[in-house]
Order: sequence, then structure tokens, then C-alpha cells
Amino acid sequence: MKAEYINPFIAALENFCETMLGCSVERGKLKVANSALEIEHPEIDQAFAKYDISAIIGLTGKVRGTVVLSFPAKTALMIARRFLDTEKIFKIDEIVIDAVAEMVNIVAGNAKTHLSDELGLIKLSLPTVVRGRNFEIRYPTGSIWLQIPFNSDLGPFFMQVSFEKV
Amino acid sequence: MKAEYINPFIAALENFCETMLGCSVERGKLKVANSALEIEHPEIDQAFAKYDISAIIGLTGKVRGTVVLSFPAKTALMIARRFLDTEKIFKIDEIVIDAVAEMVNIVAGNAKTHLSDELGLIKLSLPTVVRGRNFEIRYPTGSIWLQIPFNSDLGPFFMQVSFEKV
Repeated sequence: MKAEYINPFIAALENFCETMLGCSVERGKLKVANSALEIEHPEIDQAFAKYDISAIIGLTGKVRGTVVLSFPAKTALMIARRFLDTEKIFKIDEIVIDAVAEMVNIVAGNAKTHLSDELGLIKLSLPTVVRGRNFEIRYPTGSIWLQIPFNSDLGPFFMQVSFEKV
Repeated sequence: MKAEYINPFIAALENFCETMLGCSVERGKLKVANSALEIEHPEIDQAFAKYDISAIIGLTGKVRGTVVLSFPAKTALMIARRFLDTEKIFKIDEIVIDAVAEMVNIVAGNAKTHLSDELGLIKLSLPTVVRGRNFEIRYPTGSIWLQIPFNSDLGPFFMQVSFEKV
């Protein structure tokens, strides 16, 4: 994937945070990675944040890809509270799972409309949420993915985007 | 989703195991679940197997969905050995990640050709693999998913399929 394809995803994420969460985000350093690189440099893997909850959505069309948003539990909780305008969320339950699933759905949906000029119609799969401790999201060898860390007043999180033209 | 939509996925999985792995599988009892049910009956969640490695792929078209294959580490190792015809795989590394990603890609790809008569063209996203200890795959509230446990001479595993018409 071309690095500039990440821009509509970043713009969509920043827009979501500003308009739906009323929070500004600070973007960290873009990281480009692939599995082959990881095998040669296993220390790079250590630098990847491993968070507690991740929302994943698939993209199809003239591209095949995935978008992942990963959050520490506390950030996910704060985002769900802000998204649903309530303080009454105290644990990672179905409400939080729905909130992060909806967030990845909206961000990917918004980004795809901006990518469609160049890449044609893109469709989204259903979002899936992974919850746990100490899990990693991986891609097949040879895939290239971009990871962008964000910081916000709701806490840190990151986005991973991977796709290839078909 | 209609329960009969699961059949092409089961057939594709059984076919993959027989032709690509030379192993026969025994299908367990189909389980239909949704998140609303889980909230009312939290004990149901306990019954869901939590395995060490899961391969996820998205479906789009007139349906939106996901297919998940989940394996204990030992089953994934045995499948990768058989798939690549080598005994020299001893841990969950990139080779095993690639093998289970390819397995979900082939199974979903085979199933979609059989579903296309009724549901039109279906496309697949890139596969994603989750690896860890004690993680769960979840879907947004209201989603219905089907889970089928399998047993084989390479070990137990399960498949989850969730989709909705758009």
C-alpha cells in the first residue's frame, strides 16, 4: 500500500474524535511495518503497543484490507462514556464493545468515501472486537501495515491499516 | 443470518481438512448466539471456547460478515505442519500465522462461491490473525453468530460465522 492511502483514515479518525467525542487528538509517528522485517528485527515487535481491546473491520473492492483500532481498557471506557454521553460505564461490557465497533465502522466508512476517487467502490465487512489481555494482531507475511499512535485527553490508542490492490 | 447459510462454510472447511490436510473432522453441535442473549444469560459465555490463535476474514457484498477460525496453539501447530508437509515447526511463529490466515482465506473463498447463487458476488477482506492468551472474539450487540466446534486428529478447533444482509 502507498503511504498516502493512510491519510483519509487519519482524517476520518481525527474528524470522529472532534465531532463525536469532542476531543482533540495528537498524532504520533507513523510506523510502517511488515512481517518479513519483524523476523529480521524481532526487537521491532517489542515496540508495538499491545492493548486490551481492538476493533477490526475488513475492506474489499479494488483493494483488500483491514483497519484496526486498539485501545487500553481505560481509553475504551472513556471513549464509550463520551460517545454515549454518560458517566455510567464502569467496565468493558457490551456497551463498550458496541462503541468501539461503531467507531471503527464510522472511521473506515468515512475514509472509504475519500479513497473511492482513486480506488473505486470499497465495501466494509462487519466489525469484530477482540478483548483480552496480552494479545497481538498479526498479518500474513509480506503484508505491509501502517500503524499510527494517537494521544488524546481520553487516553492513548492506535490505528493500524493494511491493504493491497487486487 | 439464516442457519442454512452456515452449510457452505462447513462444507468448505471439511473439504479443506480432507484435501489439504488429509484429516477428517468431526463436527460438534452448532451453537447460535447473540450478544443480547449473552447479557441475559452470562453463563452461556462461559461455554465458549477461548483459544490461543484466531484467523479472521471479512465478507462484503449483499451481505456483510466475518468468518473466524480459532485454534488451541497445539492444533494450529499441527495444522501448519500438515499444510506445509514438514515436522519442523515448533512454535507459533510467522509460518503458523500464515498457515491459519491462508486456511480462513481458502475456506471463506470456497464458501462464497457456493453462496453467490443466492447472495450475489461476495468479496473477502485481507485475513487478520489474533494471537495471545485469554482473549475473546466479540461482535456488536444484535449480531447473530453461529459457532461450530470441530474435532480432528490434529486437535480441536472451532469456526464462527456472522453475517447480515445489507
